[in-house]
Amino acid sequence: MKKKIAVLPGDGIGPEVTWQAIKALDAVGDRFDHYFEYCFADVGATAIDKTGSPLPDLTLEACMNADAVLFGAIGDPKYDNDPNAKVRPEQGLLALRKGLGLYANIRPVTTYSNLLHLSPLKENKVKDVDLVIFRELTGGIYFGEKGRAEDNSSAFDTCLYKREEIERITHLSFQHARQRRKKVTLVDKANVLENSRLWRHVVQELSTGYPDIELDYMFVDNAAMQLIQWPKQFDVVLTSNMFGDILSDEASVIAGSMGLLPSASIGLHTSMFEPIHGSYPQAAGSDIANPMAAILSAAMLLDSLELFEEAKVIRAAVTTLLEKGIGTPELSPRITYGTTQIGDTIAHMIAEPD
Amino acid sequence: MKKKIAVLPGDGIGPEVTWQAIKALDAVGDRFDHYFEYCFADVGATAIDKTGSPLPDLTLEACMNADAVLFGAIGDPKYDNDPNAKVRPEQGLLALRKGLGLYANIRPVTTYSNLLHLSPLKENKVKDVDLVIFRELTGGIYFGEKGRAEDNSSAFDTCLYKREEIERITHLSFQHARQRRKKVTLVDKANVLENSRLWRHVVQELSTGYPDIELDYMFVDNAAMQLIQWPKQFDVVLTSNMFGDILSDEASVIAGSMGLLPSASIGLHTSMFEPIHGSYPQAAGSDIANPMAAILSAAMLLDSLELFEEAKVIRAAVTTLLEKGIGTPELSPRITYGTTQIGDTIAHMIAEPD
Ligand SMILES: [Mg+2]
Ligand SMILES: [Mg+2]
Repeated sequence: MKKKIAVLPGDGIGPEVTWQAIKALDAVGDRFDHYFEYCFADVGATAIDKTGSPLPDLTLEACMNADAVLFGAIGDPKYDNDPNAKVRPEQGLLALRKGLGLYANIRPVTTYSNLLHLSPLKENKVKDVDLVIFRELTGGIYFGEKGRAEDNSSAFDTCLYKREEIERITHLSFQHARQRRKKVTLVDKANVLENSRLWRHVVQELSTGYPDIELDYMFVDNAAMQLIQWPKQFDVVLTSNMFGDILSDEASVIAGSMGLLPSASIGLHTSMFEPIHGSYPQAAGSDIANPMAAILSAAMLLDSLELFEEAKVIRAAVTTLLEKGIGTPELSPRITYGTTQIGDTIAHMIAEPD
Repeated sequence: MKKKIAVLPGDGIGPEVTWQAIKALDAVGDRFDHYFEYCFADVGATAIDKTGSPLPDLTLEACMNADAVLFGAIGDPKYDNDPNAKVRPEQGLLALRKGLGLYANIRPVTTYSNLLHLSPLKENKVKDVDLVIFRELTGGIYFGEKGRAEDNSSAFDTCLYKREEIERITHLSFQHARQRRKKVTLVDKANVLENSRLWRHVVQELSTGYPDIELDYMFVDNAAMQLIQWPKQFDVVLTSNMFGDILSDEASVIAGSMGLLPSASIGLHTSMFEPIHGSYPQAAGSDIANPMAAILSAAMLLDSLELFEEAKVIRAAVTTLLEKGIGTPELSPRITYGTTQIGDTIAHMIAEPD
């Protein structure tokens, strides 16, 4: 199989972790006889420096022509510290979301038995946690009509949802649940919010098409508690944009390290895959950044191309490495490897299974 | 000092825990030479059974005439299981909020050194946590204009804030911070929401009147993470209605037991004090419910009457009891006491300090 992948390494540690993900993809290609053609393109601060734009036209074009987008990280302190900067690296990500029609952000939270000590939760709470959050990405209060009175006497934001926006992510989440433990939890605030009631209405209606999937409902305030008290109960969590923002960030810390968490953003056009961690510029070039989140993002990319077996092989390699006590410094591992060494080892494990 | 207290025991375990709080108040009265006059009134399912209304006029009148309201809990399964019930116990609470103009919900989260094992967080994370959340209670998206298209093609909710709504709770939280570690964290989503920007504008403006208080800002998604990763950093958290709903529930579980957490709702007219736990009808009448949250709510009530020393004495008695390993069954204590025995012991400790 031949696939085109647009690679947007971005800023800070983005390039070095993305490079390790490419090694993993190439190893998969060798072993399973696929050919991945990469088209590298600039985004973020790197792109501003070269072209003045955080998302040059050529980059968007490369993404539109690709089967999938592998994304690194974005952000540079020289723009954060300049409140007058008219162009910001982060605008590149927003422009990409819009350009590719990214409508669902998918964030799995998996735990590894010998990293449980890194979690702020007690080990018996996090052991065997394996959940995934589906966050709607185009609608809701972040994009609704908003305004402020000139005299600052009041301000408002509108949370609007259209049926289609709810439908497409609902189908996606139910289909995904079929490959997992077959349970979807819709998180909303239907006891108070009208848009939540529409979510319940639409999700319940569509759920009749998935009789093999169990559907339950949870209010967002309760979900914020349950994620800490009993995270194991969750399989697929389906929710709106803002609730997903809050809950996926909350859920990300229970795994103990951001360096292990991948994500996917599903697009109407092309989908994008990226680690949830930032560009972490202080660590750039020091060969200490954990590339596992980027490598696991490549596994999600393979899933999206329906290369499920190939994705599994990547995940198994990461798990094996962690079980051997190998990791980058932030995991306080038994055996410390650098960024490159992790990437090389995983590529080797994929290419030459013993 | 003579004070009138309206007592609304409510449903389930409400009456039995409220009764222990009254014992504590009476012991305070004896020791400090105050006289608390109680006016008992019905609310919730109990009130529906007697009068047909979850908040009878006489009850609201009693609250309006009192210096403070001591509230138990509300809710009965016979109404939960009847979707056609026109009147629900919970409506009593909403009617009270409106009648008394309750505009700020205050929820302290305190931890006790020998109950750290009950928390889902690791002990080093929760040890010495001492924070309080100020949640705005009258505005925001829960009360804004909302609607749904007849064909269910879309639905919306509006999040509106007026300057006055932000001002009054801001003053309250800054004044409260003066009695604590002098730090206020405003939690919002000012990078996206216009009403959050108004919050920042107003809070920053008012903060100049409190030069002794440190003010910082945090986005709500980050706050949801920080509450788990490093809850000790928080002193006073100030936030809007919905964010407060989510974060105060999230924060409530880190203490390890709901049975220990009191709350205050500050009113334009009269203020109300209640445990955060529910009516827990399965436990009613079994003398196993933990009355400490109700007793600590009475301490918050005394604070509101500026009887600070008296409030301290109640809190010290609860702490001493817990340090001795004494508690109700859900705490798995070294020495198990029943509801009444806890109340009697605390009253005794208040009245006759050794
Ligand atoms: Mg976020
Ligand atoms: Mg709540």
